[in-house]
Formats: sequence, C-alpha cells, structure tokens
Amino acid sequence: MTVTVPQGFRAAGITVGLKASGGRDLALVVNDGPAYASAAVYTGNRAQANPILWSRAVAATHTAHAVILNSGGANCFTGDFGYETTRLTAETVAATLGGAFSPEHIQVCSTGLIGHGGHDFRDRIITGVPALVDALGDHGDLAAAAIMTTDSVAKTAAHHHPDGWTIGGMAKGAGMLAPGLATMLVVITTDAVLDDAALDRALRHATGSTFDRLDSDGCMSTNDQVTLLASGASEVRPEEAEFAEALAAVCDDLAAQLQRDAEGASHDIDIEVVGAATVEDAVVVGRSVARNNLFKAAIFGNDPNWGRVLAAIGTTDADFDPYRVDVSFNGVRLCHAGGPDRPVEECDLTPRETRVRIELFAGDRAATIRTNDLTHDYVHENSAYSS
Amino acid sequence: MTVTVPQGFRAAGITVGLKASGGRDLALVVNDGPAYASAAVYTGNRAQANPILWSRAVAATHTAHAVILNSGGANCFTGDFGYETTRLTAETVAATLGGAFSPEHIQVCSTGLIGHGGHDFRDRIITGVPALVDALGDHGDLAAAAIMTTDSVAKTAAHHHPDGWTIGGMAKGAGMLAPGLATMLVVITTDAVLDDAALDRALRHATGSTFDRLDSDGCMSTNDQVTLLASGASEVRPEEAEFAEALAAVCDDLAAQLQRDAEGASHDIDIEVVGAATVEDAVVVGRSVARNNLFKAAIFGNDPNWGRVLAAIGTTDADFDPYRVDVSFNGVRLCHAGGPDRPVEECDLTPRETRVRIELFAGDRAATIRTNDLTHDYVHENSAYSS
Repeated sequence: MTVTVPQGFRAAGITVGLKASGGRDLALVVNDGPAYASAAVYTGNRAQANPILWSRAVAATHTAHAVILNSGGANCFTGDFGYETTRLTAETVAATLGGAFSPEHIQVCSTGLIGHGGHDFRDRIITGVPALVDALGDHGDLAAAAIMTTDSVAKTAAHHHPDGWTIGGMAKGAGMLAPGLATMLVVITTDAVLDDAALDRALRHATGSTFDRLDSDGCMSTNDQVTLLASGASEVRPEEAEFAEALAAVCDDLAAQLQRDAEGASHDIDIEVVGAATVEDAVVVGRSVARNNLFKAAIFGNDPNWGRVLAAIGTTDADFDPYRVDVSFNGVRLCHAGGPDRPVEECDLTPRETRVRIELFAGDRAATIRTNDLTHDYVHENSAYSS
Repeated sequence: MTVTVPQGFRAAGITVGLKASGGRDLALVVNDGPAYASAAVYTGNRAQANPILWSRAVAATHTAHAVILNSGGANCFTGDFGYETTRLTAETVAATLGGAFSPEHIQVCSTGLIGHGGHDFRDRIITGVPALVDALGDHGDLAAAAIMTTDSVAKTAAHHHPDGWTIGGMAKGAGMLAPGLATMLVVITTDAVLDDAALDRALRHATGSTFDRLDSDGCMSTNDQVTLLASGASEVRPEEAEFAEALAAVCDDLAAQLQRDAEGASHDIDIEVVGAATVEDAVVVGRSVARNNLFKAAIFGNDPNWGRVLAAIGTTDADFDPYRVDVSFNGVRLCHAGGPDRPVEECDLTPRETRVRIELFAGDRAATIRTNDLTHDYVHENSAYSS
C-alpha cells in the first residue's frame, strides 16, 4: 500500500536522532529502473526552504532517481549553511548509491521547524546515509513512518491497474495545510512506462484538484513537495488519460488522509460549491469559507451557522448574487435565496464528517474544498509545538 | 468622553428586549444643528445587512441627521421583511422626532446574529422608538452601552481642540474584526463647522489608517458602519488638515479599544512593517501575518515563532527578498537576513502588549496592523456564541 508497491523501487526509513521522540526520521526512496522518469511540484510560498531551492534547481535539468526525506527539521531560513547541508546530503546519497547516480538526480525534502538545521542536524543526516542505503528494501511503510512530524498515523495509498501497472504513494502533513501547493511531503511511485512530460501533465492535473483544494488552516508551508517517480518496470505503457485518472485518485486518497489527521481537528469539512460560473470561482468561494475562523469555530461547536458562510463568501469577487444563494449543512437546506430556510435544529453536526453545500446559481461549475474545524486542540497543539 | 461631548447633540440608550442579557439594546444619536453635515463609510462585504442597504441608499442623496442603532440582531439575510423593518424604523424615528426630519435623514445600524430580525425584533424596535426619543439628552454613555454585543466594555473617545471645537465618538466591536471597513459600529460627532465633502475626506483618511488596519480575526462583517455627524454648534471652522488629524486620533483611540476587547484575546499584537516599497505592500505583509493562525496560536503560547512570520509573508506578492528580512519581537531581533539572530529565550512575550517589527529593506514606507492572538477563549466564545 505504499511507494514500494510498484516494481523497480526500494525504500528505507531509519532513526538518526533528528526527532526528540526518537522515532524514525530519515527516509529514502530509490528508483532502480529500468527507466528513470520523474515530475515534481513545489510550494507556491516565496519563502522556500533550502531543500526546495535545491530540488527545484536540479529538477530543471535532471531526472529524479531518488528522494531523501527527513523529519525533525525544515532546514528553512538556515542560510548558506543550510543550503550546503542539502547539497552535501544529495552528494552523499549519490556517492553511497554509486552507479550512474549524480547529486543532481537526488531530490531532497525536509520537514519540521523552520530555522532548525544546524551542525548537529547536518551531521546526523550525513553520517546516517550509509545505514539508510544499507536498509533499502521493500520498506515503503518504514519510509512513510520516517517522514511523520505531528502526524498521528502514516499515510499511504496504492492503485493496481488491471493492465499490470501500479501506483504507490506516501504522504505526511498535519499542520500548515493550505495550498499552492498543498503543504506536505508526498512521494508517488509507478512502474508504468511514461516519459517526463506525461508525468508532469498528470501530476499537475492531479495535485490541482486534490492537494491544492485541501486547506485545513490557511497556512502555506515553506517545504511542500510532491515528487513522482516512474521506473517503467511493468513494461506497460498506459493511456495517458487513464494514468492521470488513477494518479488523481491516489492523490485524492492521500489528501483525504491528510484532512482526517489535521492537527486538533474534530470535524472533516467538505465545502462543496456548485452552480459557479467558473471552477476558479467555486474554489475561491470554498476557500473563503475554509479560511473563516468564525465558521470553523462554529462547526467545532456543532453550530450550523449559515450566516458566517454568507459573510465569508461575500468577501470574494466571485460571480454570484449573495441574496440568491442556498446553503445546506449535511443535507439540510438552512438558507434559501439568502434567507433562513429549514430550522437549524434539523441539522446534526455531531458526526466528524461534515458537508457544507453552497449553490451559487451563477453557472454549472463546481469544486470541493476540504478543511477542518478550529478547535481547542488546534490552538493547544500550535501554541506549544515549538516549545 | 463620547458622542454628546460636542455641542448640538443628544443621545439615548434604552432597553427594548432585543438582547437575552436584558441590557440596553437600542440607541439614538441626534444632531440638533444648527448645521447638518455628515459622512459615512460602510462594510466592504458584498453580503450586506438590510440596515447597510438602507443607510447607503439614503446617504447617497440625503445628509444624515440622526443614527438609530440596535444590538441583539443584525437584520442581515432576513429578506424583504428585514428591509421593511429598517425602513419602518427610519420612518418611525423621523415621525417621532418631528420637525424637518424625513426618513431619509435617518441612518440605521444593527449588530448581533446574522439571520436574526423577525416579527418580534421589528415590534420591539418600532414600539420602543417613542421611549427612545423621550430619553434623549446628554446620554452618550448610555448610547455606547446600548450598542454592545460581546463587548466587555463600552468604547468612547473625545478630542477637545483649543480653538473651541470638539469631537466625540463611540464604538462597538469584539468579533468579526477585520476590515474593509473595520467590522464594528461607530458614531462620531463634532460641533466643528465643516461641509459634507470635507467630512467625507477626513473620515476616509481616518478610517483608512485606523479601523482598516485593525484585523483581529480576519472575518469581515456584514453590518459595519462608521457615521460622522457635524452640528456646527461651536461656530468654529477648523483647518481641514487639523480636523482630519484630530479625527484620525479619535478613530485610532477607538480602534485600540476594539483591539484590547477582542473576543478571547490574551495578546494585543501590533505588527509594524517598515522598509516597504509602498504603504500597500506594508499593509499586505502585515495583514498576512495577522491572519496566520499558526502565528496567532504561537503568540498565545508566548512563543516568538519568527519562522511562521516568514512563512506568512512569503505568501504575498509584496516587493521584498524573503532572505533579507529582519524580524523583531518586543524589541529583540530574532531573525536577521532571513536567518536566526538573537536566541528566542531573550524575548519575553508574557505582557499583553506585543510588538512584531518586520523590516523588508525594500523602501521607506511603513504601516502597522493591529491584531490579536488565537486562544482557547476565542474558540470557546465563537463556537458557543449563537447557541
């Protein structure tokens, strides 16, 4: 059920002492071929961690053959020393793997506290690489465990196509969950035969409709990266559209797992916007609700406060008439044509799964934004995380 | 210290049964002349309450002579019935005041729950107007009390100019505190001699640099209105710039009081952005931090988490280099040139007053955004408010 499901991949996850918890904190995913195709998307934040700066730069000219990932430190805003740490990490991985690997084939991902990435951080990673390479095998689950930070469970997904090719994926992310990209680390592998360009198209399509629509807390990370590696080991070349669909399903599965494990959340809220003039309008409207603290606190209190939905969407410039809108909570239409409809008592918000449906009556496009409620546990976890 | 400080004004605040608490809930401020000049600014939310729809429409053609304000119901998304309630309110006030007052001279403001404004709400207001008019006098403080919702204290301010003219103001607001405008109700009076156009210029200038830069929780209200009435009763015509400056000082005082009383807050945070290329850039950068839940939760935990500041400002398109920025908390520079500087242990965030200073090194413009932290009390108050 993870990155070692497809043929042609090995993975490892070990402990090198980066995390105070003493848990696994260093992961490696290696493509053993016969083909080496790849694609990646990175955070849209202008404040980018050193591993993002490295990975973007080398991906511009080189196919990715392997990804090394650490938890226990974001290596972000750590200056030239931090960038050098990332470069040394890639060099060490390439040298230890041997063969045709050059440092530019190695994508590096880090997650943890911003500003964390000093001498000790570097030493533990660099000296840990030989053991990490030694540990490579059918260990996708250990790799998935090694990238967890505040995650309570590892997130993995897989797709087995009847034609004989497969996709496997792992993800981490529980806070700073908002897109442009999606605020997490993800590695996806496939043994399908596809070139870089096809992988890139499929990955952008998949992330645009899944991770980019996950907006748990409106906070965009500095370290997000989604990397897709293709080994070609199945020797099957799928229809591009079929592969893209399967990849989107794997990403959607992982996005739902990230939503369910969001820090401190007590409700998983799907905000379904329909009747929009454009998909962009639907996304903007859904996101305005997902980022409204008063709405999110109301859901925590099991209060289907449709007024806060209307107040939130009124701040957007999407095409709709605020006095024609319908709003339903868990299937009960509480607001019709911009006024009260069914009694709020008819709506039960006690289940964790929550669905808010907003009908704009401005067209026929739709989008769903995934978010979470604003809870005491969220405040607690994020006021105490770094101390 | 409030709206009845300037000559030529009477006010009242009475109880008509709109609030469950049984407190005062209906207020009236009347300009007795000899001049009748006015200006107003309204919420930038497209979802606008019925009193906003009424007040904007009549202000387009008529000077405001009086403002009636209620707490205990926002009369927003209450349909045609709600708009009719607002119109009837203005008609009843005008008829009861008599003289030259027409309904179009009456600004109406409401605050409370969205969707609240039915038959009972209308009846209590309309039947309460005669007693409200009877109660008119030097009662600015009672009016200030009658507009409170979750406010713990009434907010008032005054300015006495040596030349003999004065300004008085009252405000309410504790949640949905974010601008465009500023998410609250404010009435400001003056006995200076100024025409409508001068008042409008002064009011837009003042609100732009005060209420518009208060962003407690990122949630824009549907009912915000700031109304300025001038009676000319001092018979002194001030320099327009001098009046504008005094008005801005009164608005700044009221904005600081709103910040200090924000729902559940344990820190008042001033985010000072300096070295910006433009004032707009400074505002955008400051607001991105003010709206970042991870930053706000960190401050609640007395954690000077400068990494979250950089992650927040990296999401803007303001002109600066994320790797050159300095960030100080309460005077201690924790981040220099996009890297760690002084140890975080040197910074004490236990005082309620918190100052975050961000130096962008992109120009010489500056702006300060006022916000609050994200606390357990905020979550509690806003998850339970409507139930």
